[in-house]
Amino acid sequence: MEPNVYDRKCGSRQVLDRIGDRWSVLVVLTLADGVKRYGDLARRIDGISQKMLTQTLRGLERDGLLTREVHASVPPRVDYALTDLGRSLLDLVSGLEVWATSHLAEVEAARARYDAR
Amino acid sequence: MEPNVYDRKCGSRQVLDRIGDRWSVLVVLTLADGVKRYGDLARRIDGISQKMLTQTLRGLERDGLLTREVHASVPPRVDYALTDLGRSLLDLVSGLEVWATSHLAEVEAARARYDAR
Repeated sequence: MEPNVYDRKCGSRQVLDRIGDRWSVLVVLTLADGVKRYGDLARRIDGISQKMLTQTLRGLERDGLLTREVHASVPPRVDYALTDLGRSLLDLVSGLEVWATSHLAEVEAARARYDAR
Repeated sequence: MEPNVYDRKCGSRQVLDRIGDRWSVLVVLTLADGVKRYGDLARRIDGISQKMLTQTLRGLERDGLLTREVHASVPPRVDYALTDLGRSLLDLVSGLEVWATSHLAEVEAARARYDAR
């Protein structure tokens, strides 16, 4: 059977749910330029709660998109980095970022028209 | 100031939140091949609740990504279609679909390894 993202029981739909998620997109984007610690991610991604960041990182690790490495320092240091699989997503998530910033004015104009109806 | 998707108060972040959303991705994908009625979308996108579909369509309409046309038939027919702005997203959302289906085996293997730890 071909994978079918429209079918909620298909694994590909669960993969799409992971990568089509605002927090996953922002975490992958933040890791684009290399290894980051938990605190780096928390500071960079404005508005993400600790719970949501932890949950997003765990989901991305489970799906093989990033690695989590604990260093035995005091206090312990936890590093996150994209895997090759995670890096294969970079063009797409960067594309989403570019689209969001370059079409911002059009979207805001559309919203103003809609809200004025 | 440059748009900054990491800043939750930036408009571009709100745009990214819209397009980096599983339901938005699936609605835009479904409209790729032309006009669809509400019922077509509800049937195609397995697992979406009526409330979530209505909310997603309204958000995409407000942001200028699709149009909603009500026909004065009995019962009334409501058609949804992508705008030019919505169509400009198609390459990206199709890219997400292709990624999800073509990397499914790798993601599932990663999950199995994670769950076995």
